[in-house]
Formats: sequence, structure tokens, C-alpha cells
Amino acid sequence: MKFGFFDDDRKEYVITTPRTPLPWINYLGNEDFFTLLSNTAGGYSFFRDARLRRITRYRYNNCPLDQEGFHLYVKDGDCVWNPGWQPVQTDLDAYCCRHGLGYTVIEGKKNGIRVSQEFAVPMGERCMLMRVTVHNGTGEAKTLQVFPYLEFCLWDAMDDSSNFQRNYSTGEVEVVGPAIYHKTEYRERRDHYAVFWANRGPDAFDTAREAFIGTYGSPAKPQAVFGTGCTDSVAHGWQPIAAQQFTLRLKPGESDTLIFGLGYIENPADQKWEKPGVINKKPAEAMIARYASPEAFDAAMEKLSAFWEELLSGYRVKTGDEKLDRMVNIWNQYQCMVTFNMSRSASYFESGMGRGMGFRDSAQDLLGFVHMIPERARERILDIAATQFPDGSAYHQYQPLTKKGNLAVGSGFNDDPLWLIAGTYAYLCETGDWSILDETVDFDNDPALAQPLMEHLRRSFRYTETHLGPHGLPLIGRADWNDCLNLNCFSEHPGESFQTTGPNEGPVAESVFIAGMFVKYGRAYADICRHIGLDAEAAEAEKAVAQMENGTVPGSAAPMTPSVMWSAGRNATRVRFSSSRRGCA
Amino acid sequence: MKFGFFDDDRKEYVITTPRTPLPWINYLGNEDFFTLLSNTAGGYSFFRDARLRRITRYRYNNCPLDQEGFHLYVKDGDCVWNPGWQPVQTDLDAYCCRHGLGYTVIEGKKNGIRVSQEFAVPMGERCMLMRVTVHNGTGEAKTLQVFPYLEFCLWDAMDDSSNFQRNYSTGEVEVVGPAIYHKTEYRERRDHYAVFWANRGPDAFDTAREAFIGTYGSPAKPQAVFGTGCTDSVAHGWQPIAAQQFTLRLKPGESDTLIFGLGYIENPADQKWEKPGVINKKPAEAMIARYASPEAFDAAMEKLSAFWEELLSGYRVKTGDEKLDRMVNIWNQYQCMVTFNMSRSASYFESGMGRGMGFRDSAQDLLGFVHMIPERARERILDIAATQFPDGSAYHQYQPLTKKGNLAVGSGFNDDPLWLIAGTYAYLCETGDWSILDETVDFDNDPALAQPLMEHLRRSFRYTETHLGPHGLPLIGRADWNDCLNLNCFSEHPGESFQTTGPNEGPVAESVFIAGMFVKYGRAYADICRHIGLDAEAAEAEKAVAQMENGTVPGSAAPMTPSVMWSAGRNATRVRFSSSRRGCA
Repeated sequence: MKFGFFDDDRKEYVITTPRTPLPWINYLGNEDFFTLLSNTAGGYSFFRDARLRRITRYRYNNCPLDQEGFHLYVKDGDCVWNPGWQPVQTDLDAYCCRHGLGYTVIEGKKNGIRVSQEFAVPMGERCMLMRVTVHNGTGEAKTLQVFPYLEFCLWDAMDDSSNFQRNYSTGEVEVVGPAIYHKTEYRERRDHYAVFWANRGPDAFDTAREAFIGTYGSPAKPQAVFGTGCTDSVAHGWQPIAAQQFTLRLKPGESDTLIFGLGYIENPADQKWEKPGVINKKPAEAMIARYASPEAFDAAMEKLSAFWEELLSGYRVKTGDEKLDRMVNIWNQYQCMVTFNMSRSASYFESGMGRGMGFRDSAQDLLGFVHMIPERARERILDIAATQFPDGSAYHQYQPLTKKGNLAVGSGFNDDPLWLIAGTYAYLCETGDWSILDETVDFDNDPALAQPLMEHLRRSFRYTETHLGPHGLPLIGRADWNDCLNLNCFSEHPGESFQTTGPNEGPVAESVFIAGMFVKYGRAYADICRHIGLDAEAAEAEKAVAQMENGTVPGSAAPMTPSVMWSAGRNATRVRFSSSRRGCA
Repeated sequence: MKFGFFDDDRKEYVITTPRTPLPWINYLGNEDFFTLLSNTAGGYSFFRDARLRRITRYRYNNCPLDQEGFHLYVKDGDCVWNPGWQPVQTDLDAYCCRHGLGYTVIEGKKNGIRVSQEFAVPMGERCMLMRVTVHNGTGEAKTLQVFPYLEFCLWDAMDDSSNFQRNYSTGEVEVVGPAIYHKTEYRERRDHYAVFWANRGPDAFDTAREAFIGTYGSPAKPQAVFGTGCTDSVAHGWQPIAAQQFTLRLKPGESDTLIFGLGYIENPADQKWEKPGVINKKPAEAMIARYASPEAFDAAMEKLSAFWEELLSGYRVKTGDEKLDRMVNIWNQYQCMVTFNMSRSASYFESGMGRGMGFRDSAQDLLGFVHMIPERARERILDIAATQFPDGSAYHQYQPLTKKGNLAVGSGFNDDPLWLIAGTYAYLCETGDWSILDETVDFDNDPALAQPLMEHLRRSFRYTETHLGPHGLPLIGRADWNDCLNLNCFSEHPGESFQTTGPNEGPVAESVFIAGMFVKYGRAYADICRHIGLDAEAAEAEKAVAQMENGTVPGSAAPMTPSVMWSAGRNATRVRFSSSRRGCA
């Protein structure tokens, strides 16, 4: 079965049916504001952190599937349809979704009416834009209704999906002209709100889900769309949403364009209010003004395009193999940037609620994007290192919003420390920026414990070197890179994590994978030491690496011979970075 | 608007439209197996604990609303409908839901076909039964298809709704004849499974949600029902369900009956397997055999009815006011029993995921049901007391499955200790069973710390007596009975619980409510002491109570005068239990 194709000229993947085997999503946003968007306009937005600062609500593992997102309803007489097919699922005469670099265009056609939704997160902005273009391709004048609709999340996605006793009583909005402000908890203890807006005033709006959808209604059949229209409802508690209704009158061949936005605004504590009970909307109004016209939207798209053009320009191959070129030149680098942005913390399967970003994940992901955005890789290395424990071990995950280690997950994944060396070494090799080693970085996010980054690397190395098992191989702790191999966990109790370790944590179980890492990144560590003149430390590290490689670690009960070691670990010492190197020999 | 009426003869609330303002639910189950069931057959089942042992999946705050449950699809030619209207929402010719005492009957009629679903959890069983009766009221022979459908939860409701990365890979089922076994994680570390069965073999079945519903389908339009039928799908991972398809051929005036069950089975560790990979089904088969016939179903209903008749027989009024009689004689007592069973830990708003059962809640709920089920009230008192801390304070909540205090919520709700005295005193007054005071009960679930229950009461009293603020009133700690009054919480940070207290926990903020409780239940404590011959302790307690009541607690900075004390606290000393008393004077 074929559901689409690559359009290399436009650097897009083009999906030609809405009925993909599962929703196929794109990741919009490169800085602070992110949207996951499916090929039928489902998805969700968040600011920095998919758990702690969720802007719109999404229901994972739902049935019906992928009902939440950024849907547009088109009402043409009695026929109601969506350009992305979902959620009404009216059969379309034509459909197309273009997932591009940081943007997505969804276009549908029905009974001669063509409607496109263009989505993008502009560079330097905390918002997503949606341009809607409606074209009357029929031979007669048409009066159409269009309705955008989204559901707000009450900020903390975990709380939002479990604590209804409280949440049903807290929702608050303000509506001013074409803008709907979601301000739940702003009064009590938040300095941020969300805003959904249109670039012109609607005929009507709704901010209460029940008013728009109906008690027993559904996104597939909202009562406001199928019935008598929006009713200017103002949400007090329950489920705040943003929905609007526009009447478009189009002559034959005529088009009309609307620009919508979903923004996130933070105000300083002393500038939260315009007057008592009324939020300070100035920053939102300025944002809205910046994207009032189609020209402004075009300019934002050009800026985004230039950003990606520049990012991808650093590393290009022309091999004669179309598929290889496409993957290396476009999609692998694009994926690496997405990984940089959210490090697998949010998807349609990874809810972003149970975890933050991984220490290991983020460190190893560096290898893929360090050549594209060395400055941001530098920042990421320092962020990760700041969550490391003073003994060299690490929180396995940290929250991107707070940049603090995640206590709920904890530590003890014994490959973590060496990944810090791996990521830093990749950065040094790519940039030659040795000054990073002198940066002062917290341990455990405590400034009182801060040390130069180089000291972090030393403790990473030492942690592995001093936590060895009976064969002289590194102890696995709770897990190594293969998260499913948890040698110390013999869980017999429901509800217990498979990554739990008992009172006998780690006295025996060893990881050949970490041994391989130690050989590879131990050499990298020695290389770094020698480069900055720490010859004695380098020699000592090289000796430890050689002992590990040769199975001659002193005190091992039964030294492992090299032939027993996992071949990937052995071969790791011969792997070299494939990107251009400006730093290392 | 009127949505139903009370049928006092049958002790039922009768709902006459499926379009109630929200789903109106009944609570089935009195022992270990519980089902929350809406008037349209939505809802969910669990074993003892709504979080840790969830049997079927439910999506709270969903849109569309209330799609999960125990729905039956009827396919009559091209017309598909549900007797409970949801989820297909085909208009019915007649509809009725009868929420009775521990059972619910939903009946719908369409095009001359009448279908009823009778739901009940039989006494002494870990299962729910659903009897389906289909009557052909037309003048012609009919061939109908009926499909029951439910979705399994992967046991831990919180994990089930957030950890998709793992959960999508773990689902396992077995199918044998008319029984579908849900056995996810049984192989690894569970000794329990669920089983859905019919009392005769279906034409076909499905256990994979996608096969029954379709990728982009919905419970409102399952592809198996609207399309070509069930396909005998066997779930491996993803979403295990139970769906079956039956063909019924009915002459004019003829009826047919099917009995379905949803059971929960625990096996001893050494009897888990019939053979490798095949679960031991003997206990399930025995359960299925017990309810194979309509007569067995009728007998179970009679037993349930007798149980309730007996329960409600202990306390009846005849006031001449129909509404008062109805509430006192039926519904208030019914509600109290539901509260006993799950202490507000599960509903359609309280997800049962974020908490267990309350220490305070359970203790005060005792007052409502102690006269109905004194033996079980006794057990509950001992369970609650076993979670108390040695200093007399208490975990605010505990998990009903493990009966252990819930660390996630913690302690510091300073009214909690006195509720233990309140509940125990009510029990003593009702039963005269003074032996309960001699029962040995753990502190903090640690047998090494066990003491007689009387010692628990003493520490409850002492805890309050010794945690006073500057006015000599009890410190509120994190909160008192009014959970929304959290005087020590000045949360300025998003995500922080409003019941968090800072480093300055409790040095000043006092609770007049707890002061009132201290007066009332301090007297109760003194009463208990005197009754068992602890005259000195009684005198001392009475003195402390009098000082609290008179605002003369020694050392108070500015003693509260009685007139300032909240009137409810003052009046509390004059309140007397309203139920019959067999124990106290």
C-alpha cells in the first residue's frame, strides 16, 4: 500500500490519503513553542515541556482516534466537512497533506470548494499560525460557514488527565473581539496564558466545550456546526475551548483567507493585570498584530524556510542514490533536530507525562545535530551536565521546563555518565571550542557544588571505572542502553517498575555494553585530557581502558577475555565520527 | 426538566431518557468486585481498588462522552442501535433505565424489537453478570445480530493511561469457546486475569480493538457491526477487548436470552498454569458454570434483593412525608453503603487514579453505615487505624487493595486523628462491642509497632491536644475537614499542590473546626475511658476539653473566647447520634 511520496524539490513528504495506518505526524517548532500535528490536523501544542506546560489537550490511545487538534469545519449547505477529513470523516473529492520542514499544509476539496490549512511555528515566536484559504471553484456564488476548534489543556498534562474533581472547577477565559484568552490559574499563581485568535472578528464564538459540541455530541458532530451555530458561550470551569464561526461569501473563482494563531504569553509578575480581573493582553496584541496579513504570514514562512536551508547546508552528499541523498541531506538531519528539540519526550505514543528528557538520550542525540547547531548543542551539554550527581552518576531524566533532574525516575542507569563524555567529545571534535571545558556547571542543579565541565567528565569516567563487577566489567545498575535488559530486577509484584532494583542493587550484574562504551569514550576522555595538557590523567585513563579491553582489570574474579566481549563493544573503538571535524586530529 | 422518577415499590430510580444532563451512574458490587454503570451502559469495573486493579478501561472527561462501558449493539437489517442509546445514538422508540439496589436494568425498543440488559454483581462473586433478553414484538420472523463489547484495562489505571510506550506491547489474551481471557502480565508477575464470557458460543469474536472498531472507527460506528462482522482477531499488544457476535432468529412474539459475565480470577502461584503458556481456567470455568442458566441469574438477583432487604430493615421511619421516608429508608442508606464500599475513591469525576480511600472519609462514613453492617465497620476501623502513625497523626489516604497508607498524598491533615475516635465511638455506641478496643493494630502497617486500638485512640487525642497554636486552638497542619482551607499554603508556583505546606508548616494557623471536633470527640474519648475504668485518663481528657471549650488552655497567647468559636464547633457538643444505641447510655 502506498500512502504518499517524497517531494524532494520542496523537501516535503506528501500524504495522499487521510486514512494512513495510524496518524502520521510532523513536529512544528524549533525553540520554545511546539506542535505535534497529524496529517488530518490532529495533535497538540506545548511550551517547552510536554508535561508541565501543555497548551492544548490531547487524548492518547483514544477511540475514536486523534480527535483533538486544530480542526476546521466547513459547512456548505447541509454538507459539513474538514479539509483534513477528520473528525467528521466526510468523503473528500481531493485530499493532500504536505509535511514540510517545520510546517504542514493540509488541503481538501469537496463539491468544488477547496480549503487549505497551512500550519507553522514562526521563528522567534511563541505561537503557531494557521492560514486558511477557501477557494470557490464552482460556477456559482457560495455562502459558507467555517469553524476553527481546539480544546485547551489546564497546563499540567498529568494533572489535567487525572484530577477532575479540581479541574472541572478552575477553567477561566476572556474574550475580546477575535481573541480568546485561556487564563486558568493565572489569577492564583501563573504568569502565563494562552490565546487563540483570528485576524478578523468572527460572527460568533464558543469557549465552553459543551456549548460547541453538545453534551452527547462529538468532535465528529459538534452541535454548533450541525445545528444553529456558536452561542458566544463563556467557560466557567469544565472544559475551556476556542471555537469561532465565520461566514464567507465567495463569487465563482473567488478566494478568501483567514489567519489564525495560538500563542503563549508570559507576563512579569508586576505586569500581570490590565485592571483587577482583566489580564494584561499587550504582548498578545502585539503578537496578533505581527501576523495580521497574508504578507506577514508569507514572510514568516520565508524566514522558516531560510532557517532550514541554512541548517541543512552544512552537510550534503550527492551519491547517485536518490534515497540515500534524501535521507542524509534532508530527513535524517530533520529528525535529529526534532530530537534535539524534544528528545523523544513527546509523540503520539510517548505521552510526555511520565518523563522529561533523557540524560542519555539528549547526550547521544548531540551526535546527530552538533554540526548543525553547535551553539545550542553547547547549551544542551551544560544543561545536562548540571543535573549530574557529584559522584558522577546521573538523573536518568530531567524536565525541560525547569531543567532539573526528575526525581520520580531517579538514577542508576549506569551507562548515563559515559554519554556525557560522548556528547562533549563530539562537540569538541566538531567545533574545536575547548572553552566549554572551563565552563562552571552545577552538580545536581546546586550552584554550591559547581565545578568546571572538565571535572564532570572526570567524574563520569571515574564513576564507571570504580563501579565494576566480579569480571572487571562495569556494573549495569538499573539498566544500560538496552532499557529492556534489567539484570537486577526480578519484579514479582504488579505495579512495580521493571527498572526497580532490590536491596541487592548491582553487586554482580555487569554490562558488556558499558564496557564497550568505557573503551571507546575512555579513549575519548584520554584524548581530551592530553589535548589540554593533563598528561598524567590521560595516561592513567588509557591504562584503565587497556585493562578493560584486555580483560586484565586487577582484582577481577574471572577476567573476561576480549573474545567474550560483545563485538559492538569491541568494534566501538574503531568507529570514527562521520561528520566534518574541525577540532580533533 | 424531568428525566425520571422514584419507584418506591421496587426501590428503583427510573430514568426515562438517555439524554440526562450528564451520565447518571449506579454503583454495583458490595464486596470485592465493583462496576460503575451509567444509564446508557457506560462505565467501568475494578477489583477492590480503582487505581491498582482496574478491569475495564474508562476515559474520563472524554469527548464524545461516556463511550466506554458494557454496550450491546443490535443490528436489525441496516438499522444498528443500542438498548441504552449510546454509543450509536440511534433514536429509540422506547427507552428506560432502572437503577436499583445493586443492579441496573436498561431497556430499549426499536422497530418492534425490545432488548433489555440486566446488570448485577452477585453476592459472594468476583464478577458482574449481564443478562440480555431480546423480544420480537413484530408480526414477522426476524434475524438479528447482537454484539457485546468492552475494552480491557491493563490493570493499573494510571499506568494504563500514560505509559503507552510500554503498554502497547504487553496485551495478551486467550480465547476458548465463549470465553475471552485477558491475561496481560499474568506470565510475568500477576496471578490474576479477567474473563468475559457468554453462556453459549458466539458466531465470531474479536479481541483486538482495531479489528472490531476499525483504525478510524469509533464505538459509535464499529466496523465489525456496520461492516462484515467480527473476524476472530487475537490481540497481541495494542488494545485487548472482548467483543462477540451472535445471530438470533426469532419468530413473531418470541424471545431469546443470553447471559454474559465479566469475572476476575486469582490463582495461587503454584496453580497459575494449565500447561506452559496456557492459564489455569478452572476457577473461571466454575464461575461460568454457576451462571449458565436464566434460573441461576434469577437466583442471584433474589439473593441480592434479600441482602438489601435485610440491610435496610434495621432502620425505618414512617413520617407521613413520602420524600423523607424514601430518603431515610432507601436512598440515604444505599448511598452510605456505596460510600462504605469505595469511600468516594471512584466516580465519573474522581478518577480513582490519584488517590486511594480517605482516612477521614472512611472514618466519618462509618457513622452512616455502622448500624447496617457492624461487622464490616469493625474491620474498616481496624484497617484505618493500622495506617496511623505512631505519633497519632495519619496518612490522609490509603490504597484499598494493599490497605497501606498512600505516601504520595502523605499526612498533616490535622483533623484526621480525631475522626478515628469519632468512628470508633459510633461503632461502640451502636454495637456495645467493647472488645474492639483490645484488638492489636499496627501503626504505619508495621506489626512491630502494633498496640491495642485503645492506644490508637489515646494517641489521636494526644496528637490534637499537643499540637496547638498561639490561641490554644489546634493547629490546622495542611488542612482540616474543609480541604479548600489551607492556611499554611501560599503556593505561588504552578504545579505545586494547594495542600503543600512550606518550611513554616503549622506554627501559627489554627482550626476552629478541629477545636470543635476536639470538644465533641474529646468527650467521646473520655466517655470511652470511663467506661473501661480509666478514670484518671478520663478526668484528664475532660479537663483538656473544658479548657478548649472555655478558651483557657494554659500558655495560649490570647485565649479564644467561646463566642468567637465557630458555632458548629460549639454546638457539636450537643449533637447526639440519631441511630439506635445499644452500647452507650
